[in-house]
Amino acid sequence: MPIQKTLEKITRADPVWQDRAKERINALTMPPWALGRLLDLAVEVAGMTRSFCLPPLKGTVVVAAGDHGVVEEGVSAFPQEVTVQMIQNFIKGGAGVNVLAKQAGARVVVVDVGVAGDLKANDESGVLLSRRVASGTGNIARGPAMSREQALRSVEIGIDVALELADSTDIFATGEMGIGNTTPSSAIVSVLCGLDAERVTGSGSGIDDEARRRKAETINRAIRLNRPDPEDPVDVLAKVGGYEIGAIAGLVLGAAAQRKPVIIDGLITTAGALLAQGLDERVTDYIIASHRSAEPGHPVALERLGKKPLLDLNLRLGEGTGAALAMHLVEASMRILNDMATFEEAQVSGKGE
Amino acid sequence: MPIQKTLEKITRADPVWQDRAKERINALTMPPWALGRLLDLAVEVAGMTRSFCLPPLKGTVVVAAGDHGVVEEGVSAFPQEVTVQMIQNFIKGGAGVNVLAKQAGARVVVVDVGVAGDLKANDESGVLLSRRVASGTGNIARGPAMSREQALRSVEIGIDVALELADSTDIFATGEMGIGNTTPSSAIVSVLCGLDAERVTGSGSGIDDEARRRKAETINRAIRLNRPDPEDPVDVLAKVGGYEIGAIAGLVLGAAAQRKPVIIDGLITTAGALLAQGLDERVTDYIIASHRSAEPGHPVALERLGKKPLLDLNLRLGEGTGAALAMHLVEASMRILNDMATFEEAQVSGKGE
Repeated sequence: MPIQKTLEKITRADPVWQDRAKERINALTMPPWALGRLLDLAVEVAGMTRSFCLPPLKGTVVVAAGDHGVVEEGVSAFPQEVTVQMIQNFIKGGAGVNVLAKQAGARVVVVDVGVAGDLKANDESGVLLSRRVASGTGNIARGPAMSREQALRSVEIGIDVALELADSTDIFATGEMGIGNTTPSSAIVSVLCGLDAERVTGSGSGIDDEARRRKAETINRAIRLNRPDPEDPVDVLAKVGGYEIGAIAGLVLGAAAQRKPVIIDGLITTAGALLAQGLDERVTDYIIASHRSAEPGHPVALERLGKKPLLDLNLRLGEGTGAALAMHLVEASMRILNDMATFEEAQVSGKGE
Repeated sequence: MPIQKTLEKITRADPVWQDRAKERINALTMPPWALGRLLDLAVEVAGMTRSFCLPPLKGTVVVAAGDHGVVEEGVSAFPQEVTVQMIQNFIKGGAGVNVLAKQAGARVVVVDVGVAGDLKANDESGVLLSRRVASGTGNIARGPAMSREQALRSVEIGIDVALELADSTDIFATGEMGIGNTTPSSAIVSVLCGLDAERVTGSGSGIDDEARRRKAETINRAIRLNRPDPEDPVDVLAKVGGYEIGAIAGLVLGAAAQRKPVIIDGLITTAGALLAQGLDERVTDYIIASHRSAEPGHPVALERLGKKPLLDLNLRLGEGTGAALAMHLVEASMRILNDMATFEEAQVSGKGE
């Protein structure tokens, strides 16, 4: 679906449903707001979904995948072929995100939006959606990542995946795979937050500090060369982004248009969410931040989104692992809302009675 | 079982099993230690249990319950009858801890160690264990909470409950119920950490700041009057503690003696864990800190235990709710350890290959 048409469907979360949730919470057998952020979360989700969203929630972790020409510059500790190998691992169910999604009772769907390698890999499991825009981005240190048309296409793919999965999904979680993708993600955060890359560039999948400094220089160079317009998220995506990051931006838009909560993960998916925010601030009402990752750009990006993460466990795997882990907390919040007894039901005396 | 006999069974966690877990983790398809604290947790649990502890884990939340004579001093926002009413709520499954334990696939067991009110309350559910030492403690602002014999008895009850449940439990979580019990808990933290009560006394179930100040004064008065010996945890328990807190100390000892992980919750269960630590430092190897509560004494007590909490969600309900919530993270860590594919199995290239 075109971006513009999707934006027209997005509305703010509903304060009436937020108030309904607050009213019920205040009647439950506990001291005032004694489950803290779990209760905030319940109110938020009620406002998003216009419901109390009876658990168990059907969850889907959408892992968007793409490759990055910038790996030529030595920005990653792993070779590019690992993108394809990890997708096979996702299909077989052996990756971290599979394990944590399974625990959460959620499904994993992998979307190839821009992988470079061969993936004809017969997928009988139905895990893989082939929506490739191109076989990897251009090297952003030497030119744009992609054309504006390709950028729009990648966002639309994310929107369409959200629509396609909406019926079988109460809550989305975002994930990603793409060797080198912390580089475009840090570039996006650098541009949208107006900070030098040195401030928002980390060690990704495990480069040393010298390589990290070179990575930050590469990002600064890419930004100087491509001159992305911070006021135009599609331009930022085209100049220094990645296909999977565009698809995540689209998924966030699509989820918001469907009034479904969407849990973001680490730096890369949060960069996608920042692009979506740039397209329409209202999407932030549907975003739940799962965790604070070890990447320095992540807290910066979360602050820009106005989100406080639920978990802080020094995760830096990506794939959607933190988002999958946080599904339990979102479901916990809705179980509290639905399943706890009220003071009246349980005949418990209230405060100071 | 007597405390001394239990202490003889406690050994440090096993570094050989910790190393086995580390070795497996380093072979799994992710960058080095990319799931951060989940991996630390997997190593810890392997060291405790001398196994990779194949999920699903059988969890039991033990909610120890007792009443407190000090409620006469106006330290709580709720009337004492709520202890009994909430126990009925636990039995019927309507409380926060029931909801979160159910989500975690865990069982709730309530132990009446020192409730004041009538609980003949036909419990056909098997949730309630009646092990009452006395019907509430003495008012610590006017004398000791209990005799030394009663203190020992409450700890032994906790040990015995751990032994009784050990066969059906892979992991324990601690909970508590007892109107007024943040007062003795803050007193214990104050004595064992050598800090003025003003530093470690919070608003409990929701008193205002003026009442909180009076509560801290009451605690300081109780300590001056009863003169608990900080070197003798049983004396501290007898002078300014509570029956449920003694039982939690015993449960921690019993879990450690059985080499089972035990998750602590908020201020009260952490005060119980501090008493257990005072009896034998080695028990700390078996303790997992679930969350940082809103009570100011809690981070102080966690630091004394040498524990960093997994969650920080501004919870202050108690009951074991935070501990129940953290069970998911412990299980996640063991699922990662057991279920993720290795680089070799998944034919994924390693770092820099």
